[in-house]
Amino acid sequence: MSTAGPKKVCILGSGNWGSAIARIVGKNAQEHDAFDTVVNMWVFEEMIDGKKLTEIINETHENVKYLKGYKIPENVVAVPEAKEAVKGAHILIFVLPHQFVERICLGIKDTIEKDAMAISLIKGMIIKDKGLQLITEVIKEHLNIEVNCLMGANLAPEVAAGYFCETTIGCRNAEAGKIMKKLFEAQYFRIVVVEDATTVELCGALKNIVAVGAGIIDGLGLGDNTKAAIIRLGLMEMVAFSQAFYHNTETATFLESCGVADLITTCYGGRNRRVAEAFVRTGKSIEELEKEMLNGQKLQGPQTAEEINIMLTSKNLTANYPLFTAIYNICYKGLPATDLISCLHDHPVHM
Amino acid sequence: MSTAGPKKVCILGSGNWGSAIARIVGKNAQEHDAFDTVVNMWVFEEMIDGKKLTEIINETHENVKYLKGYKIPENVVAVPEAKEAVKGAHILIFVLPHQFVERICLGIKDTIEKDAMAISLIKGMIIKDKGLQLITEVIKEHLNIEVNCLMGANLAPEVAAGYFCETTIGCRNAEAGKIMKKLFEAQYFRIVVVEDATTVELCGALKNIVAVGAGIIDGLGLGDNTKAAIIRLGLMEMVAFSQAFYHNTETATFLESCGVADLITTCYGGRNRRVAEAFVRTGKSIEELEKEMLNGQKLQGPQTAEEINIMLTSKNLTANYPLFTAIYNICYKGLPATDLISCLHDHPVHM
Repeated sequence: MSTAGPKKVCILGSGNWGSAIARIVGKNAQEHDAFDTVVNMWVFEEMIDGKKLTEIINETHENVKYLKGYKIPENVVAVPEAKEAVKGAHILIFVLPHQFVERICLGIKDTIEKDAMAISLIKGMIIKDKGLQLITEVIKEHLNIEVNCLMGANLAPEVAAGYFCETTIGCRNAEAGKIMKKLFEAQYFRIVVVEDATTVELCGALKNIVAVGAGIIDGLGLGDNTKAAIIRLGLMEMVAFSQAFYHNTETATFLESCGVADLITTCYGGRNRRVAEAFVRTGKSIEELEKEMLNGQKLQGPQTAEEINIMLTSKNLTANYPLFTAIYNICYKGLPATDLISCLHDHPVHM
Repeated sequence: MSTAGPKKVCILGSGNWGSAIARIVGKNAQEHDAFDTVVNMWVFEEMIDGKKLTEIINETHENVKYLKGYKIPENVVAVPEAKEAVKGAHILIFVLPHQFVERICLGIKDTIEKDAMAISLIKGMIIKDKGLQLITEVIKEHLNIEVNCLMGANLAPEVAAGYFCETTIGCRNAEAGKIMKKLFEAQYFRIVVVEDATTVELCGALKNIVAVGAGIIDGLGLGDNTKAAIIRLGLMEMVAFSQAFYHNTETATFLESCGVADLITTCYGGRNRRVAEAFVRTGKSIEELEKEMLNGQKLQGPQTAEEINIMLTSKNLTANYPLFTAIYNICYKGLPATDLISCLHDHPVHM
């Protein structure tokens, strides 16, 4: 990435997390000479009461659909064409549902600056030929630029409200790490930059599976002790998975905000937990609940559990990850929710 | 400890945790030849509606004062004299408020079996000449026997209800560890034995300070993100404290049930959290709330924060533990609760 002159920033995505982060990034772009003041935000165009969402955002400075009640700084400009939004940008912030990543990358790859750098705030993975790809790997493969990630205990509505929280930026390049910290930091949003970017990203994806487990426990009407057991043993499977399939995983990274903190937040306050609880209580399918509770948006946890399961099955390794496997089987294969308890009981003592 | 013949077990204490554990221990003493069937339980004598609590327990097999609604096995016999209760016992289970430990030890030291072994379920520390003593050290000093500990994510009412949970036994002697596991294990109570007994006990004491912090955050009306931040940074201070003042602390122990799991449970479901939340919301003192909410029982977290603070102050080290210090100052020195947020914000990135 070129180091001269103010860097132009583009946010790709405008859901509740994208809009919450636009509040911080927009303000920092105003305040720091290191950044161009104008920040483009690619918004998937929708009609809201007969008016385009991009026009509403640019006139009212509020994303009335995904983050109602919170102003976005006026220097953040909603743009309906991704290709247009990324023009001249040096920093691309990816914050959109993970199933759209490839399509967006294909659309912008001929337009982006050659020395641009990306950062992914997307939690999930993609399954390809029975192997897994991290989102940063997908972006890198298509755009051939440096890709970092930001993950942490950051429920979007609370970040929007300005409640204090921490986050972790995974960045292998120290110089880039400094720029990213400057771009995302706020009084209420504390950043720790670590080099072990792969583990940061793995934490963000895998914790959603554990959150589904926590929701199943809640659905069974059990208490905080059982929930702590599934969080702890889920964390152990996250560590074991990362060490088995990725090199140089550092245990310390699991103690950063992206690790244990995000896991706790997600297992108590997140939507994966909430839908999984309803799944057990109502007996409806995950698909039905996605329609009812999430306006048809896909829930990340069951999807990641499925992707992991395809990979583990192909390698004959499901038995090493009894919780991940049971959660998948409960969500999609009719395994009774109560089997999760036997799974906790029989879990290998030390992974 | 002698290895021949069935071992007699004595439970010292009969609060809600003591009574919940008596349900498991009593059943195991019935079922395993390794233990004498009769288990004595020392009960602090109280009059309940004109009748002695020991008599009520021995007639109805229920501790109507501290664990109403749950039967205690009939082979558990309530005894009002500690000296009488420990006679002939090979295993002494300490599960009473920590301020009574010394007095009980003095009362039984001439009566206990020379080859007896103890296990402490007590969470806390004692301050002595501005230094700290762990509860197992206090017991060992007075009784001169081997002392182990058991700590975990074990809210007593949930254990009594038979909801699945895990726990950790800290035991330096592998043979003794096997016996302890046999004595405490149940289908719904999963045991992991580790050698690093000091860290197990430290976790049990220090987590209550962090839980007070979590309650303060709840009292301020903040959300799950901020709470995850205080849990994570609190855990970092627990690790740093253990490494600074005790030898051979293993980081892996903090990932056992006694560590991260108990911390989560206590920060969401425990009474330290609950009283601390009320402390912020009502403006009443900790002492007043102990009277109102706990029938005058002492709350462990603020007390441990004070003991730690006396020791750290004497060594001029309070600045290294900003959360422990702020929580003490908020509880007892009029520091505004909101200062805890600055404390999170300015916390040293890596301890």
